[in-house]
Amino acid sequence: MTTGDDTIAHSGEFSLIESLFHRQRELPPDVRLGIGDDAAVLAGGAADRAAAVDTVIEGVHALPGRDAGDLGWKAVAVNVSDLAAMGARPAHALLAAALPGDLPRARAEALAEGLHAALSEWGIALVGGDTVATPGPLTLSLTLLGPLEGPALRRGGARPGDTVYVTGTLGDAAAGLALQRDPPGEWPAAYDWLVARHARPRPPLAFGRALAGVAAAAIDISDGLLADLGRLAAASGVGIELDAGRLPLSAPMGEYAWATGSDPRTLALSGGEDFELAFTAGAEAFEGLHRAKYASDTRLTPIGRVVAGRPGEVFGEGLPATAGGYDHFGGGEDP
Amino acid sequence: MTTGDDTIAHSGEFSLIESLFHRQRELPPDVRLGIGDDAAVLAGGAADRAAAVDTVIEGVHALPGRDAGDLGWKAVAVNVSDLAAMGARPAHALLAAALPGDLPRARAEALAEGLHAALSEWGIALVGGDTVATPGPLTLSLTLLGPLEGPALRRGGARPGDTVYVTGTLGDAAAGLALQRDPPGEWPAAYDWLVARHARPRPPLAFGRALAGVAAAAIDISDGLLADLGRLAAASGVGIELDAGRLPLSAPMGEYAWATGSDPRTLALSGGEDFELAFTAGAEAFEGLHRAKYASDTRLTPIGRVVAGRPGEVFGEGLPATAGGYDHFGGGEDP
Repeated sequence: MTTGDDTIAHSGEFSLIESLFHRQRELPPDVRLGIGDDAAVLAGGAADRAAAVDTVIEGVHALPGRDAGDLGWKAVAVNVSDLAAMGARPAHALLAAALPGDLPRARAEALAEGLHAALSEWGIALVGGDTVATPGPLTLSLTLLGPLEGPALRRGGARPGDTVYVTGTLGDAAAGLALQRDPPGEWPAAYDWLVARHARPRPPLAFGRALAGVAAAAIDISDGLLADLGRLAAASGVGIELDAGRLPLSAPMGEYAWATGSDPRTLALSGGEDFELAFTAGAEAFEGLHRAKYASDTRLTPIGRVVAGRPGEVFGEGLPATAGGYDHFGGGEDP
Repeated sequence: MTTGDDTIAHSGEFSLIESLFHRQRELPPDVRLGIGDDAAVLAGGAADRAAAVDTVIEGVHALPGRDAGDLGWKAVAVNVSDLAAMGARPAHALLAAALPGDLPRARAEALAEGLHAALSEWGIALVGGDTVATPGPLTLSLTLLGPLEGPALRRGGARPGDTVYVTGTLGDAAAGLALQRDPPGEWPAAYDWLVARHARPRPPLAFGRALAGVAAAAIDISDGLLADLGRLAAASGVGIELDAGRLPLSAPMGEYAWATGSDPRTLALSGGEDFELAFTAGAEAFEGLHRAKYASDTRLTPIGRVVAGRPGEVFGEGLPATAGGYDHFGGGEDP
């Protein structure tokens, strides 16, 4: 890191950097008051609202060497994923940014660029913000609010007999993270795609919104398919029988697994940060699902079924006995 | 710090700690879904809502040696102060907690205690949370939402001729912080009160809510009276003439200033984290102000008046030429 006049600790620079984060384009009509007062004011409305918060930390959720814009993007994307999993429309964000004093200005600018690119991608208005200096790593906590246009898609609604579906492909982000951590000498173009899947995820928001009133239960996959399906199963008081042979894998991930000798199934089952949706639906939802799938051009794969009994368990041929998930904390598992 | 089984890095402990933060008592009826799904669901309502976010960091907003509960309390209180300054009622909170891996469990418990004590003090429901591990210091970002029961109290409404008021007493928190940083050998009981004013602030929420529709403009004092009045004056396009002789000081602060040879006026003008309210009101507001004052037992002091011209300036006899504020960043001022 550089020091001196190029870092935000330089007096005067901090408020300039703050303004990078807080810059506003046009505010939507349901924001009566944006950043600049003691609090934002959001118009009252008849619809219920979803509210989620998530934190991303440099070195934990994004590698320090990478474009800082990735971290800004991710702070938004991880919350969009949560709202997608509720069937809500993201509308308003509040950002708490803790910036190291030796953060070079160019990096702060990249961070703000990635943040605003993601806000713009999903049509979200930044209505509140707090920027503070920290002796620790760059930390962004974003709160995302938005109206529910249908019934909330909860984790607890799965019923025995439902089919279990997943959007997109699995394990790409885990492969992308491994590639960033330990870049191989040979770098086929497919690897860029895998890295982007980790660095700038695009949760299936339109599909999630279309699922409201169609799916029985839903969850976003942030900690790995097994861990998150386990949560859905526990909340619903049911078991899930998974057909590991049907897990949707991408061609780049196949290429990566082949070149590195990794097990694609393990990546797909336990690799974190896919930010896809897993959900359950009965046969009656067939038409609604197809409408949602084609309207949003979303890949959709049935991967198992909901069973009575064995609440919270995810099982099936070829699955590990205990379902492990992604552990940001890295503390490992106890014997 | 201790290491080993007493720290939250120990496997299994992290989710236990997380549950400390996320524990729920009864949820109010306007919370349809609290912590435990991908997002909270808040009932739609006719009233506009205020939304604020603030971050507190151990070592920046609270001293590392202190009770961790103070930091938990403060994460809530600083946001309550923002909503009080808007005339809103705090209702729903979302917490992003970044905890160091070597945080001793007892400290995590104290932190959660302080957090929940403050939530309970102001009747706030914790509806969302994200707990992550950080290689940096303990960092809490809290988002606070709540309905506005009257018109929003904005910074920009001050009119020439208005009287400028402040609640409570000023400079206590700055004295309390100095006492924690450099504890003197002799410690009169009054010092405990000053430390509490810094460590567990109690913003005048009931008074702030009663100000809606009564005051012309309002702001909370977090960075020091001069800095924050300057913001109010700038937002309103007016100047403020301050009578420094009328600044409300507490007896303990007087005792501290006398014993340490500090200038009480400087503490009152530029000491940060008072979390009192400064506001302006015209003569027509006299009755409303008195009702608000007596209903909430709030000390109220007229300290100046709003003047036309000199927009953004705060001036008066005995005031420094340039208004300095509290700088969490500690970068100092440029020559």
